[in-house]
Amino acid sequence: MKVKVSRKAHFNAAHRLYRKDWDDKRNNQIFGKCSNPNFHGHNYELIVSVNGEIDEETGFVIDVKVLKDLIKSEIEDAFDHKNLNLEVPEFMELNPTAENIAVVTWKKLRPHIDLKHELEVVLYETPRNFVTFSG
Amino acid sequence: MKVKVSRKAHFNAAHRLYRKDWDDKRNNQIFGKCSNPNFHGHNYELIVSVNGEIDEETGFVIDVKVLKDLIKSEIEDAFDHKNLNLEVPEFMELNPTAENIAVVTWKKLRPHIDLKHELEVVLYETPRNFVTFSG
Amino acid sequence: MKVKVSRKAHFNAAHRLYRKDWDDKRNNQIFGKCSNPNFHGHNYELIVSVNGEIDEETGFVIDVKVLKDLIKSEIEDAFDHKNLNLEVPEFMELNPTAENIAVVTWKKLRPHIDLKHELEVVLYETPRNFVTFSG
Amino acid sequence: MKVKVSRKAHFNAAHRLYRKDWDDKRNNQIFGKCSNPNFHGHNYELIVSVNGEIDEETGFVIDVKVLKDLIKSEIEDAFDHKNLNLEVPEFMELNPTAENIAVVTWKKLRPHIDLKHELEVVLYETPRNFVTFSG
Amino acid sequence: MKVKVSRKAHFNAAHRLYRKDWDDKRNNQIFGKCSNPNFHGHNYELIVSVNGEIDEETGFVIDVKVLKDLIKSEIEDAFDHKNLNLEVPEFMELNPTAENIAVVTWKKLRPHIDLKHELEVVLYETPRNFVTFSG
Amino acid sequence: MKVKVSRKAHFNAAHRLYRKDWDDKRNNQIFGKCSNPNFHGHNYELIVSVNGEIDEETGFVIDVKVLKDLIKSEIEDAFDHKNLNLEVPEFMELNPTAENIAVVTWKKLRPHIDLKHELEVVLYETPRNFVTFSG
Repeated sequence: MKVKVSRKAHFNAAHRLYRKDWDDKRNNQIFGKCSNPNFHGHNYELIVSVNGEIDEETGFVIDVKVLKDLIKSEIEDAFDHKNLNLEVPEFMELNPTAENIAVVTWKKLRPHIDLKHELEVVLYETPRNFVTFSG
Repeated sequence: MKVKVSRKAHFNAAHRLYRKDWDDKRNNQIFGKCSNPNFHGHNYELIVSVNGEIDEETGFVIDVKVLKDLIKSEIEDAFDHKNLNLEVPEFMELNPTAENIAVVTWKKLRPHIDLKHELEVVLYETPRNFVTFSG
Repeated sequence: MKVKVSRKAHFNAAHRLYRKDWDDKRNNQIFGKCSNPNFHGHNYELIVSVNGEIDEETGFVIDVKVLKDLIKSEIEDAFDHKNLNLEVPEFMELNPTAENIAVVTWKKLRPHIDLKHELEVVLYETPRNFVTFSG
Repeated sequence: MKVKVSRKAHFNAAHRLYRKDWDDKRNNQIFGKCSNPNFHGHNYELIVSVNGEIDEETGFVIDVKVLKDLIKSEIEDAFDHKNLNLEVPEFMELNPTAENIAVVTWKKLRPHIDLKHELEVVLYETPRNFVTFSG
Repeated sequence: MKVKVSRKAHFNAAHRLYRKDWDDKRNNQIFGKCSNPNFHGHNYELIVSVNGEIDEETGFVIDVKVLKDLIKSEIEDAFDHKNLNLEVPEFMELNPTAENIAVVTWKKLRPHIDLKHELEVVLYETPRNFVTFSG
Repeated sequence: MKVKVSRKAHFNAAHRLYRKDWDDKRNNQIFGKCSNPNFHGHNYELIVSVNGEIDEETGFVIDVKVLKDLIKSEIEDAFDHKNLNLEVPEFMELNPTAENIAVVTWKKLRPHIDLKHELEVVLYETPRNFVTFSG
């Protein structure tokens, strides 16, 4: 009786696609306007899903309030209204593409989720672009 | 040539998270405001998906009108504008968490779907909380 | 330079359409399944809009954080996870139709909004049914 | 480090569900109003997903601009503002059900996506009916 | 105590932008791919709003079930799964632009709505293009 | 026969709420985390509406393709993937609140819209915060 429980959250942030070890010309060539040195930004929509057996006593896989609070403390407090490149340690040396933000989000949440549960992260960079990471 | 065909439906209902064998204090401790004895309610959005081979003659896996009518007769007619705890037999002894509603929905639909097809149920309790069950 | 600033909020609640001074038969005749004595419920989506001159100093008509907190304290805390008929004083003698909920919401918010600003309330009872009240 | 990258696109088109080798009576019997000889139409929403390893250098699985342009040249330019039955070669002998449109979309895109990547197509025929094909 | 009550509905249809009294070249010059002689189509989303005083007895401006049934009988039954140019009398001599469809919808509904109420029609031709008509 | 024609568009950008003539402490006191000196960002959704008489010949108030292209050249090309404070001349001395962005958008579009038409701008800063300006 495995059920996947999903919670949608939100943060907005500035970023640029950028590698420190490339010069501006090469960054611009590969990342185009997404590499604007003055940054741009997004309303990121985040869906975090925990997959596992239903607890027979509570009828929950995970209390969604616990999941909501975890997303807030680990992700929203860390990323919301921030410049990902300048202020979030994980992206100081890692290009903040949607793919990498999803992986970092997954890695920050994984230690807080029971190991018997699977974890999946969907990250919308815009309403038309999104990525999914399941570990 | 397996394709998954999905149909979105809707019902609204009252419920409370509650175990009869727990006293009010314990229900409140575990389920918080979701255990309000006077009930609260939701607009549940339901996505039912049937996965199987395309019939070469019709080009359908399943006629979506058949699926729509099935969801209406088995789920919407049973749950819509109801108090899940008081009026829906499946939840008289089973806590109507989103997880359990998804499992009950799946079990009610499964006998009506060809056994060669897989069945998946996604249930949105709110726009930000949803669960997925595939049997 | 009048701008309308809008903030979307959310609460879910149980209710029934019901007049105490009508018998069950008449309530059922007029309100149908919406008058189920065991209640049903909705995820109400609420959009509160404040229309006024932009403050030249801040560039705000109203600080949206102030508006968000006001909606929380006056509406969400009062209505969320409640049974509107049984627990919300305004609806003990007033039928909680979408129309009346919008009017009550407007009246609860109006004293807290600067009189030089106009106030509008949009209330979604379901994704397909909604009402608008502007005083 | 496999991540699934998804891009949403849009086209609108006319179609009818119809088999040339059936007479009108049989087409109407099986496909109902969807077989209207004068056609009807939809705003199709399309989500194309590419699943693969993150390129360590760029942080991309696939550059979403490349994916966007590919969907435009292969799918939108071919299907948008068209009559699928009369003007799109793939559907001249194939019934344009949502299932078949998803399969054709997948087959048109597959040769342009690196073979080490998996490809998935989700096609919304209406906001309530959609299909998923993964090859 | 005037409240605007809104109901969302849906129909899908084929159409082309076209004037019979213009030749194909001129139709194509003005309406571009929207004038494809083989038609294209849309999922039209329709929001019908009725503005009036709340009835003190019921708490309704208009019973939304009445409004829903009226939209079905007057609009959905007339337009859904139809070719607007060929099968809907109102558009046989009138170009079915979104503007004109909204006006026709309004005119078809107006006689059925109490004259003391105002009527507004919003018609989405695509998720990004929509029109509003209030008489 | 006045109809309002609306077109939805999109841009994403970095910004901070900030007055040059205030010190950082005061900016932070009034604008909170929205004044982060390293910027944050949003996916702005923009709805531009033109209200006017239907042209009897075309059935258009305004050709929506013309409106789409105008929004692209005047707004998207100017704001998309930009840092509003540093790169968009209008906001170098004007705090880029949602209110001010809507007013600037309106002023940039107004000269290109026929004077007999009314113009309205709705700007979503997040899915929950938006503003409306009509001149």
